[in-house]
Amino acid sequence: WSCSSWKRRGRCAAPLPHWTPAPPSLSTPGRGRKVRGVCEGRPELGHPRGQRQPRRRVILVLAGGGGISCVLQDGEVFEKAGVNVSVVYGLLSEEAARQMRSRGKSLKAKDGKLPFCAMGVSSVIHPKNPHVPTMHFNYRYFEIEEADGTKQWWFGGGTDLTPTYLNEEDAVHFHKTLKEACDKHDLKLYPKYKKWCDDYFFIKHRGERRGIGGIFFDDMDSPSKEEVFQFVKSCAKAVVPCYVPIVKRHCHDSFTPEEKLWQQLRRGRYVEFNLVYDRGTKFGLLTPGSRIESILMSLPLTARWEYMHTPPESSKEAEILEVLRNPKDWVH
Amino acid sequence: WSCSSWKRRGRCAAPLPHWTPAPPSLSTPGRGRKVRGVCEGRPELGHPRGQRQPRRRVILVLAGGGGISCVLQDGEVFEKAGVNVSVVYGLLSEEAARQMRSRGKSLKAKDGKLPFCAMGVSSVIHPKNPHVPTMHFNYRYFEIEEADGTKQWWFGGGTDLTPTYLNEEDAVHFHKTLKEACDKHDLKLYPKYKKWCDDYFFIKHRGERRGIGGIFFDDMDSPSKEEVFQFVKSCAKAVVPCYVPIVKRHCHDSFTPEEKLWQQLRRGRYVEFNLVYDRGTKFGLLTPGSRIESILMSLPLTARWEYMHTPPESSKEAEILEVLRNPKDWVH
Repeated sequence: WSCSSWKRRGRCAAPLPHWTPAPPSLSTPGRGRKVRGVCEGRPELGHPRGQRQPRRRVILVLAGGGGISCVLQDGEVFEKAGVNVSVVYGLLSEEAARQMRSRGKSLKAKDGKLPFCAMGVSSVIHPKNPHVPTMHFNYRYFEIEEADGTKQWWFGGGTDLTPTYLNEEDAVHFHKTLKEACDKHDLKLYPKYKKWCDDYFFIKHRGERRGIGGIFFDDMDSPSKEEVFQFVKSCAKAVVPCYVPIVKRHCHDSFTPEEKLWQQLRRGRYVEFNLVYDRGTKFGLLTPGSRIESILMSLPLTARWEYMHTPPESSKEAEILEVLRNPKDWVH
Repeated sequence: WSCSSWKRRGRCAAPLPHWTPAPPSLSTPGRGRKVRGVCEGRPELGHPRGQRQPRRRVILVLAGGGGISCVLQDGEVFEKAGVNVSVVYGLLSEEAARQMRSRGKSLKAKDGKLPFCAMGVSSVIHPKNPHVPTMHFNYRYFEIEEADGTKQWWFGGGTDLTPTYLNEEDAVHFHKTLKEACDKHDLKLYPKYKKWCDDYFFIKHRGERRGIGGIFFDDMDSPSKEEVFQFVKSCAKAVVPCYVPIVKRHCHDSFTPEEKLWQQLRRGRYVEFNLVYDRGTKFGLLTPGSRIESILMSLPLTARWEYMHTPPESSKEAEILEVLRNPKDWVH
């Protein structure tokens, strides 16, 4: 991996402490824990001890939260790869409360106020080589304090893969690794969250999914906070074994200019999904004071739109389109 | 101009007839007129008689309308340039009626139905050379039949310029030509529609406008249909004298790879505006049965997103950003 172009915008003042395996909480002492734990896991992804470490940007967003964004740009293997870790807390906006209620949540406000705390980690990795797929994951925790002092909490997140070309072996490996992580907790989770992922990453105006899926879930608040937290940790820990073997297998594959062009067109669809449909992106863009560069970090370095581009029948390009239009089950 | 890459998808069956200077109407005989008139004007833009003519795509969209899309891609001067001419009619969707009512329109439906007819021409031209600005225009006519048989009608549209680098002479020429077209009808129009344009093309999450503006208006239904139609025709006829001299002046300018890169980043902002804010694009994407390729024709061939890209102070890049953040009056 090349770290030569990690953008330097600041440094973490101190080394990040080790993972603290307690569930997060709105109470102050626990607030920073999950974030640090997640940060600590990152060097696995290509920065072994002793090698040059990525520089980290520490952002303090107003008084209501903070975060760290790291972006690698125009590297040897990755065209653009970013990680966001953020903690926000404050009072829920009316629009956000309305959206949550429309998802079926009953939220009793105190004098119209709903204190909340949200924290999460997200990452998008766009490789250079069109035979290495784009990968995205996001895991988040949300907590809201109601009028009577009770706290509603839930976890959400997912991991999904967006290949330029279909490689069945990679697709099976990716889904199988996610399924194993889910199955340790409940056999019902993988099928449910696999379907949710296919439904969520749907580019309606194209009739295509953004990629070949993975898992996606939201509002997960049972059986217990400890059990859901263990599940989310399993998912987060599956990210590296899901993806890194695929990167290693293909990052030296040769490719043609036509394959690079098809990748650029697929990047265009990625932009369409993220700007038109993605809930997190839309929420971020509409939230005053949010950090736009972190929100739009998910966009690829380069993208392309051609009028009426249609791959020939039975081509490799048509093969991936078919799977994006009609999602497959990769593991049973 | 190079026409070598006009995408051939079909041909007009017959030569387009000449401009028919009558205002459009929901009554059948007039319905196709404006469209044909507008089409007829296109060859001026770089296709003189005797030279190779662009090929035209004729689309019949369901029974409820039709249109013609022409796209030039990867030409010598233009990276991507498209024209859409469309006529749609049918019953207004509830969502569309709600949006119109929220703009202050009182629409009395008959058995819940509101027959409408809309027609328009739009074009976006993205040049290759970063010293030639992108230009967009759209002129449209809308008619709705209410319960008692009365017809509400209005015109909307505008022309605007998106330079990669600021050239004051070009900006003044562009705005002056638009102002002259407006002033022939009413001296109040240019200042009002210039401001409307600056307000409309605002990329809120960036705090920047998409470009250096031009004119933009909607719901124009006075003083009379004939007078508004004459005004819209003046605006449409101003498109070529607004833009073509600027293209001719700069299409052979030399440019550096750094200038091309800055153009690609600005193209990214263009995509952000169109996918996140543009009413026409959003309406199109959400309308079942709409022709996605025509709607997204406005997107550039290529675009780029870099994390935390900030041009140095006093650079040419910072100069255009300043104008996009604080719009200027170019003519008085």
